[in-house]
Amino acid sequence: MNYTKSNLDDTICALATPNGTGAIGIIRISGKDAIAITAKIFSGKNLLQANTHTAHFGKIIFDKQIIDEVLATVFVEPKSYTGENTVELSCHGSPYILQRVLEVLVSNGARLAQPGEFTLRAFLNQKLDLSQAEAVADLIASNSSASHKTAMQQMRGGYSQELKNLRQKLLDFASLIELELDFSEEDVEFASRNELYNQVSAIKQFVAALIQSFKYGNVIKQGIPTVIAGKPNAGKSTLLNALLNEDRAIVSNIAGTTRDVIEEMLVIDGYMFRLTDTAGIRKSADIIETIGIEKTWEKISKASIVLYLFDASITTPEQLKLELDAIELHDAQIIPIANKIDLCTTAALQQFRAFENVIYLSSLNKTHITELLETLSKLAHAQTGENDLVVTNTRHVQGLQNAYDALANVLNGMDAGITGELLAFDLRAAIEALSEILGLVTTDELLGNIFSRFCIGK
Amino acid sequence: MNYTKSNLDDTICALATPNGTGAIGIIRISGKDAIAITAKIFSGKNLLQANTHTAHFGKIIFDKQIIDEVLATVFVEPKSYTGENTVELSCHGSPYILQRVLEVLVSNGARLAQPGEFTLRAFLNQKLDLSQAEAVADLIASNSSASHKTAMQQMRGGYSQELKNLRQKLLDFASLIELELDFSEEDVEFASRNELYNQVSAIKQFVAALIQSFKYGNVIKQGIPTVIAGKPNAGKSTLLNALLNEDRAIVSNIAGTTRDVIEEMLVIDGYMFRLTDTAGIRKSADIIETIGIEKTWEKISKASIVLYLFDASITTPEQLKLELDAIELHDAQIIPIANKIDLCTTAALQQFRAFENVIYLSSLNKTHITELLETLSKLAHAQTGENDLVVTNTRHVQGLQNAYDALANVLNGMDAGITGELLAFDLRAAIEALSEILGLVTTDELLGNIFSRFCIGK
Repeated sequence: MNYTKSNLDDTICALATPNGTGAIGIIRISGKDAIAITAKIFSGKNLLQANTHTAHFGKIIFDKQIIDEVLATVFVEPKSYTGENTVELSCHGSPYILQRVLEVLVSNGARLAQPGEFTLRAFLNQKLDLSQAEAVADLIASNSSASHKTAMQQMRGGYSQELKNLRQKLLDFASLIELELDFSEEDVEFASRNELYNQVSAIKQFVAALIQSFKYGNVIKQGIPTVIAGKPNAGKSTLLNALLNEDRAIVSNIAGTTRDVIEEMLVIDGYMFRLTDTAGIRKSADIIETIGIEKTWEKISKASIVLYLFDASITTPEQLKLELDAIELHDAQIIPIANKIDLCTTAALQQFRAFENVIYLSSLNKTHITELLETLSKLAHAQTGENDLVVTNTRHVQGLQNAYDALANVLNGMDAGITGELLAFDLRAAIEALSEILGLVTTDELLGNIFSRFCIGK
Repeated sequence: MNYTKSNLDDTICALATPNGTGAIGIIRISGKDAIAITAKIFSGKNLLQANTHTAHFGKIIFDKQIIDEVLATVFVEPKSYTGENTVELSCHGSPYILQRVLEVLVSNGARLAQPGEFTLRAFLNQKLDLSQAEAVADLIASNSSASHKTAMQQMRGGYSQELKNLRQKLLDFASLIELELDFSEEDVEFASRNELYNQVSAIKQFVAALIQSFKYGNVIKQGIPTVIAGKPNAGKSTLLNALLNEDRAIVSNIAGTTRDVIEEMLVIDGYMFRLTDTAGIRKSADIIETIGIEKTWEKISKASIVLYLFDASITTPEQLKLELDAIELHDAQIIPIANKIDLCTTAALQQFRAFENVIYLSSLNKTHITELLETLSKLAHAQTGENDLVVTNTRHVQGLQNAYDALANVLNGMDAGITGELLAFDLRAAIEALSEILGLVTTDELLGNIFSRFCIGK
């Protein structure tokens, strides 16, 4: 599909609800002729005379056969999601019927929509900017309170309004500097260099914060990478099962999980954790080697949180120190977990008091699991919590990085006393990077990348 | 759930679209307080002041958090599917969001709906009679043109109007006869015995036709049982594959197919065939024994159509006659298929001209497969086609059978000159059987049986 020149004259239709049998299935029709085409096959009120945002009961009839009794809701342009005339047909949720209705629409002049084409039209008709359009897909894919919150924020404007303001400021400066160039022989300075320097510094800082937030944004979207590590028989798999069975945790499986690593999604208090069990590591005489198998270290190196489980009934503080030291070489937050406390005396547990933040539990008897869940929830909150503006989109973070680099060039250039011409060039580069995020400049490839990942019907 | 006394004061809510991620998910809320409850969490137009059948854009807000931006369509009682106040919320199709919206509705006073509870309410509020309500489930499950047509017919009134008329006639007669009983000492006859006899005969005949139609009705719903039979190496599996690959045929697999029998669903021109291959039969010296294995015969005895395949390059007319004679002992329609015609001369094929309706094809080269598809389509049309009133529901056919038996008793009784008292008793039994079909008398168990099979949200 040619995205920038997408033929807005076409009327498109698609099933907007998930495939399968249900009580209701919705077919969405959008385009100049959406109402006229539907009216041709709809027996009931004349939809061409219907007010916008009204629902009408009637029959879909084709070739003298009643295909379904439906409810048709009419949206008159520009008051619709796409900004075009739109009809939503609420049909009986039989895949057979829905297929037939689509066929009838197509034979009356509509065509089947491409993935994301409704939202593409909303963007092309300026109902949404590009980052808002992208958030629609994120919103639909959201599966935890945190991912839902950031997607909703982005869809409702989020940082795109802020970016628009910053871009406008840069644009104003660039214009003034370009104006200076026209008067270059007179040595005037329309743009105050001091003010420019301060503003660019502030903008650069804001952009840096957004880039920084991507770390959290990614975690929100993909889940916080959390690894359960520990020696064999420390009780790792039992702990995983105990966590997954806990009432406060919601579990879902990830499709495409590699077969040799157990990976589970765990949602605690709205935060999603991507939990990896490192069970199945061979036993070895050497402690470091035991936990040192390449794959485990690789996972630990990528983890945000490591639940380090040890058998409190047989581990000495010296051993534990060695083991934790090895893990502390990595960036992850470590939660040491003393397991099998049902086999230990209180005095025996006292020997670990030198270690910070140890959680004492029995994964077999499922005691004190709640403490672990609460600790995880607090850590997640600290990592992702109060950040209001979070970037979750790889494309945006790349754009922000380009903007950041250009802004750094502006500042360095000013420090070095470069000409207004070069200054304007760097400013334009920063502006362009921000424009791309907002979709003020688009290419076919960019739009293709974004919208082809949508589901059909959105 | 207590179905007859189902608490109509409750406001119920459910996801009405299939589970899974999609562009849109619809949540349906119905009941006295449906609009009021939704209004509490909806930020936008005051839904309590909205006109019926209007759609309003707004936000679902709970605990100061925006859960989704939705479109709320309001239906004011009695102008809704259930006959109650109803709101349909068109949300973003994220399972997480849909779950959250349901939670928020429940915490504001709605409760989750049972399967079929919306349609149950439509029935209890007399928007649909019971047989129409049952047709809604059939309509959603319809997967071929024929099953769709009969379900649609039944939902739109179908034979339930006819049954109502017949029931009324019987009721009138029963009342007159009961009136006679009050005047029994005066030997009056309010109900003309002649007219009664004729009317009951006519009604009995109509009921018999409906019972008869169930054979077709069942076929429409389950598919026409079709068996591919023939000697080993006649090319049965190759034919099955050729049929399944054919453009005009739509294929679907049936879940739960027994492992030792290949069964495929084949939809040709809107008719569904349940196709069984009898491949894998051991070779034997005796022809009759070859095709005579118990399982094959069992399938043939239950089939409506038998595709009898023979290798035209090696079969003699005498052999073929023997084989067909054995199958003709059963009720199925036989289509003899001369396979491997690419290996035969025209003269060789001439020897089968004494047999009727033989189709000549090569399943390996896929030649003349279309002729077979056309023949199957014609047969299906003849078996199910022009019948306007078709019973597809086991419950109905049982009720009709009860009515038929009672009507037969009435006629036999009249022939034998029984008393008005006994006549009235038999008439009442017939009336009751028809009433049950129409849902004019219901029990908890009956409603439970019917509605618990619905999907949630309908």
